[in-house]
Amino acid sequence: MNLIYYPGACSLADHIALIEAGLPHKILSITREKKTEDGRDFLSINPKGYIPALELEDGTVLTENQVILSYIAEASGKLLPKEGFARWRVFEALAFMSSEIHGGYMPFFKDYPEPEKVRAREKLAKAFAILADQMEDKPFLVGEEMTIADCYLFWVLMVAPKSGVELPENLRRAFERLRGRPSVAQAFTEEGLS
Amino acid sequence: MNLIYYPGACSLADHIALIEAGLPHKILSITREKKTEDGRDFLSINPKGYIPALELEDGTVLTENQVILSYIAEASGKLLPKEGFARWRVFEALAFMSSEIHGGYMPFFKDYPEPEKVRAREKLAKAFAILADQMEDKPFLVGEEMTIADCYLFWVLMVAPKSGVELPENLRRAFERLRGRPSVAQAFTEEGLS
Ligand SMILES: N[C@@H](CCC(=O)N[C@@H](CS)C(=O)NCC(=O)O)C(=O)O
Ligand SMILES: N[C@@H](CCC(=O)N[C@@H](CS)C(=O)NCC(=O)O)C(=O)O
Repeated sequence: MNLIYYPGACSLADHIALIEAGLPHKILSITREKKTEDGRDFLSINPKGYIPALELEDGTVLTENQVILSYIAEASGKLLPKEGFARWRVFEALAFMSSEIHGGYMPFFKDYPEPEKVRAREKLAKAFAILADQMEDKPFLVGEEMTIADCYLFWVLMVAPKSGVELPENLRRAFERLRGRPSVAQAFTEEGLS
Repeated sequence: MNLIYYPGACSLADHIALIEAGLPHKILSITREKKTEDGRDFLSINPKGYIPALELEDGTVLTENQVILSYIAEASGKLLPKEGFARWRVFEALAFMSSEIHGGYMPFFKDYPEPEKVRAREKLAKAFAILADQMEDKPFLVGEEMTIADCYLFWVLMVAPKSGVELPENLRRAFERLRGRPSVAQAFTEEGLS
């Protein structure tokens, strides 16, 4: 399968998950003009025009970060509790980070007027507090094992400084722990990040 | 299980799904002061402070609309293809409506300044076009059977006029078809809508 990505964008979560899960894959970056590095028109692959997109062997294309992460977990049998309510907590955390945090970064990515940034910072601070309560002093966001929620969490925490909202101490530590994983180092190298 | 809701808010999707799935449930509304109708403090049930929240028999509380919808589908064995890629298309549609459409309604719900509304309308028009392409002339958003994606779709289309963005013709027809279902009529009555 091919993961279509921009370096350092939210597709980094899927990239880390693919490596952690040990699934064979290629990564294909796209240009700002929406050409894939193998010369195709990205809009003909994903009419939504945004990344991440996961292109399967038969050409089927799956979009939406949290769904691609769930697909990676199902395809590999890894990074997701097989049963019990923890499974729902993983999906809940993904949906929360997508709707309440990722969306909240928009004013900083696109440099919207200051009042929008102020409002977004309030919402983000509240959302980080919720995540911090869920994280407690556990090694990972849901339970004792790494899940796809931590892959998305890593990206969400990496981007937080752009918003100017300070992260709670336990989330800062979680970020550092994830940053130290070989999968993350490998994803950084492959995406040309430092 | 108890669905905690506001009348006519996005929890309507879950309410319709519970009825369609035939799962035994109660609905509990909350006041603007965040008291449940059985007199409890909603923030102690869901610290995020927003609806929908699903309270299970053992007191466990699940949040995030798309995840509650998936839980209803799994608990009932209904409203979701059991296998095949259509299952992923349902999750993808839910994530898309949550991140790209529900989020885009905020400026109209909260009456944000006009430039934000203009920007939101552009984004919504693009998102409705994507949904319309996916709907084609099918009876439901994913395939021939109703799924949880249609429950969320109904709410998303119901609210669209607030944004001033016109819906594509096939989505307007889909809305009317869903509006005619007994489950939707029942949910409207139970929520005191008309
Ligand atoms: N709803 C999508 C949103 C994805 C998204 O926002 N992607 C950003 C990068 S983090 C993007 O591609 N933006 C560029 C664009 O929209 O042109 C998801 O959750 O996957
Ligand atoms: N991320 C949540 C957002 C839910 C949401 O936006 N709920 C709205 C109603 S549609 C709400 O309760 N707003 C009132 C508030 O935030 O106080 C989800 O997808 O379920």
